[in-house]
Amino acid sequence: MKTASIITIGDELLYGAVVNTNAAYIGQCLSDLGIEPIWSITVGDSREQIHQALEIASQQADVVLITGGLGPTHDDVTKTIIAEAAGLELVFHQEILDQVEVMFAQRGISMPESNRIQALIPEGADILKNPIGTAPGFSIKHHQTSIFVMPGVPREMKKMMEEQVIPRLQIHTKNRVIVHRWIRTTGIGESNLSELIKDIIAEATEIKIASLPQNTGTNLRLTAQAETVEEAQRQINTVESRLLKRAGSYIYGTDEDTLEEVVGRLLTKTGATLALAESCTGGLVVDRLTDVPGSSVYICQGVVAYSNEAKIQHLNVSEEILARHGAVSAETAADMASGIRRISGATYGLSTTGIAGPGGATALKPVGLVYLGLAHADGTITQELRLGTDRRTNKTRAMLAALNMLRLFILEPQLIA
Amino acid sequence: MKTASIITIGDELLYGAVVNTNAAYIGQCLSDLGIEPIWSITVGDSREQIHQALEIASQQADVVLITGGLGPTHDDVTKTIIAEAAGLELVFHQEILDQVEVMFAQRGISMPESNRIQALIPEGADILKNPIGTAPGFSIKHHQTSIFVMPGVPREMKKMMEEQVIPRLQIHTKNRVIVHRWIRTTGIGESNLSELIKDIIAEATEIKIASLPQNTGTNLRLTAQAETVEEAQRQINTVESRLLKRAGSYIYGTDEDTLEEVVGRLLTKTGATLALAESCTGGLVVDRLTDVPGSSVYICQGVVAYSNEAKIQHLNVSEEILARHGAVSAETAADMASGIRRISGATYGLSTTGIAGPGGATALKPVGLVYLGLAHADGTITQELRLGTDRRTNKTRAMLAALNMLRLFILEPQLIA
Repeated sequence: MKTASIITIGDELLYGAVVNTNAAYIGQCLSDLGIEPIWSITVGDSREQIHQALEIASQQADVVLITGGLGPTHDDVTKTIIAEAAGLELVFHQEILDQVEVMFAQRGISMPESNRIQALIPEGADILKNPIGTAPGFSIKHHQTSIFVMPGVPREMKKMMEEQVIPRLQIHTKNRVIVHRWIRTTGIGESNLSELIKDIIAEATEIKIASLPQNTGTNLRLTAQAETVEEAQRQINTVESRLLKRAGSYIYGTDEDTLEEVVGRLLTKTGATLALAESCTGGLVVDRLTDVPGSSVYICQGVVAYSNEAKIQHLNVSEEILARHGAVSAETAADMASGIRRISGATYGLSTTGIAGPGGATALKPVGLVYLGLAHADGTITQELRLGTDRRTNKTRAMLAALNMLRLFILEPQLIA
Repeated sequence: MKTASIITIGDELLYGAVVNTNAAYIGQCLSDLGIEPIWSITVGDSREQIHQALEIASQQADVVLITGGLGPTHDDVTKTIIAEAAGLELVFHQEILDQVEVMFAQRGISMPESNRIQALIPEGADILKNPIGTAPGFSIKHHQTSIFVMPGVPREMKKMMEEQVIPRLQIHTKNRVIVHRWIRTTGIGESNLSELIKDIIAEATEIKIASLPQNTGTNLRLTAQAETVEEAQRQINTVESRLLKRAGSYIYGTDEDTLEEVVGRLLTKTGATLALAESCTGGLVVDRLTDVPGSSVYICQGVVAYSNEAKIQHLNVSEEILARHGAVSAETAADMASGIRRISGATYGLSTTGIAGPGGATALKPVGLVYLGLAHADGTITQELRLGTDRRTNKTRAMLAALNMLRLFILEPQLIA
């Protein structure tokens, strides 16, 4: 098996100002490829330490992946050191500078002179394009080791890894296929999910199932190794069908699916539109939904109404309901949902009201109490959630529950109504 | 200055199944103590790699901190390797075993035999108590280096670090202090900021300035070392004042400040309220603002109006303006802002309209073109942005620019109006 070392460069990583997610991401990619990561070294923006890390890493492993220190500032020294270590000159590439200039021009600003150094690349290096940033990466050979150098900005690094580095690394792993599939769930905790599907996991001896709790829900990662892609996919499909049969109401998608995309596809497919009336989620539901390109077709409008006055004025919530049941109640959630549906003319009205925290709790209504409302052509349904104490987490969990409620209603209205 | 290396042990870290928060936490503790972390190495549960990492780390630094591989299972080999490297025997400690047995008894289960090995500690080591877990830590000297070994479970490690390790490390750091300050900026790219302040950086020889681009803006980290906290703070204050004078319109806060908190504090301080009319940001502005606890006091309401109809119906935008200038125009942004201000009765109305992408561009209006509007008691101001092509990034940058526009207006209306 081929081995790899990871070097992540940056004072901010060493001093712990930033948690090193780049190393974790690269580690995952390598292990997916069947390449064994054996060292992961983090050093600061120091010439001497970068040089030593490079020597150690390249003596130990077949592949070295490096991130960070490619920017235009005085503490970005990675390129110089790698070129020195490999005995290569830095060569100016006009086409890189042109591209950087275009990027600045698109933003309507002229390129600072310091960005010229981004066009310097070690001679003979294979250039790794960076379509979303100004620092290109590159790859060279040093001591029989393939070295890949990428920017430290996580989204730029990930894109470069996916589009440029992984295809090059696959040369090292021929005759092996590894296929992964993410199964994305929401509305169930990791331990409850694992209890629900434990016999399926135990019996799935051909494939590996990892469970990864995230703040959007617990995701399962199915990994199969086989001679062919078809065989690996067949193994994964078998287990996925069992999971869907058992835990389908929690499973909203696979791989890169997000819940907002899945809901958007369902709305598009059924020719339906949606309007939002948010209180405790403060605009997070409509924010997520509008992250999907083209969502303007099915999102009519969103209203964020915190105060009772705003709920009355902009959502036509009944004063009597607010007085009798309070703003945080199933009745108010229902009235908000039907109010926004009526005002907007949308197919569905979706609402949230609750106590996100840390303040606002009463004896009967604790922090984390949330009601969701869904108004449709034939009536209104509501759902009560009892969440935790952290404000952002409560907003996120309420948003996910609201989207999942709509998803299930569109798919199987009889199950949820 | 004393130096330190961090070794974090565990396959799960190397393969990226778990993000390495332990290394970040230890790095922060060290830098707060005035000990410079120079290497952070992650290796798997492999004898050979742990041994090599230990040799490299202890040759380089005055202090080595190690986490992980102290559990009772076959892949927990840290203790044996460290004892071997230092030429020490493992000695059985009955009092440790007694404590582990008590822990199991408290959970109502009998101790598995495998836990006996947790009572083995290198001879002469200083034992580091673990009150919340079964694996104690320890400290030894090796090659003039102080080595501290802690469990890998983050909460156990943190408690041991705070209660046992930091007090021991303070012996190394007497008479030295390190003070950090983050300077948070928005609305300027890393290279333009670095260009703008390069002479200040060059002349600030007493302190270290690192630049860190994040998706909320570029942050600067100022680090001073001195005999006293007061002296270190004085050094930082001097440079901070120069930065504020030069780049004040981009600097919104320090340390843990977020832009939404800063805006919230300004609104609270001036007794003002805010209402939002969002098109291209799709609710992200109100979502961020409502992440701040207590924001319901100053956020009146938010309306997300994508379509022209919604802009006319819910924001009273003039049909004539929409027809003449289009939805993405300074005129529409101004009309949205004054519309929401009038409807809500808020002190300020803030609006966004633009083309978030990837679709929606026209010959004259490219993806990334955004207009912001701010309506106040005496009129309306607008701002044009030319952003990039990524939808989520465009939403985020437009949101930040809108909040910064409001911040600057409240602080110095004459500068922006």
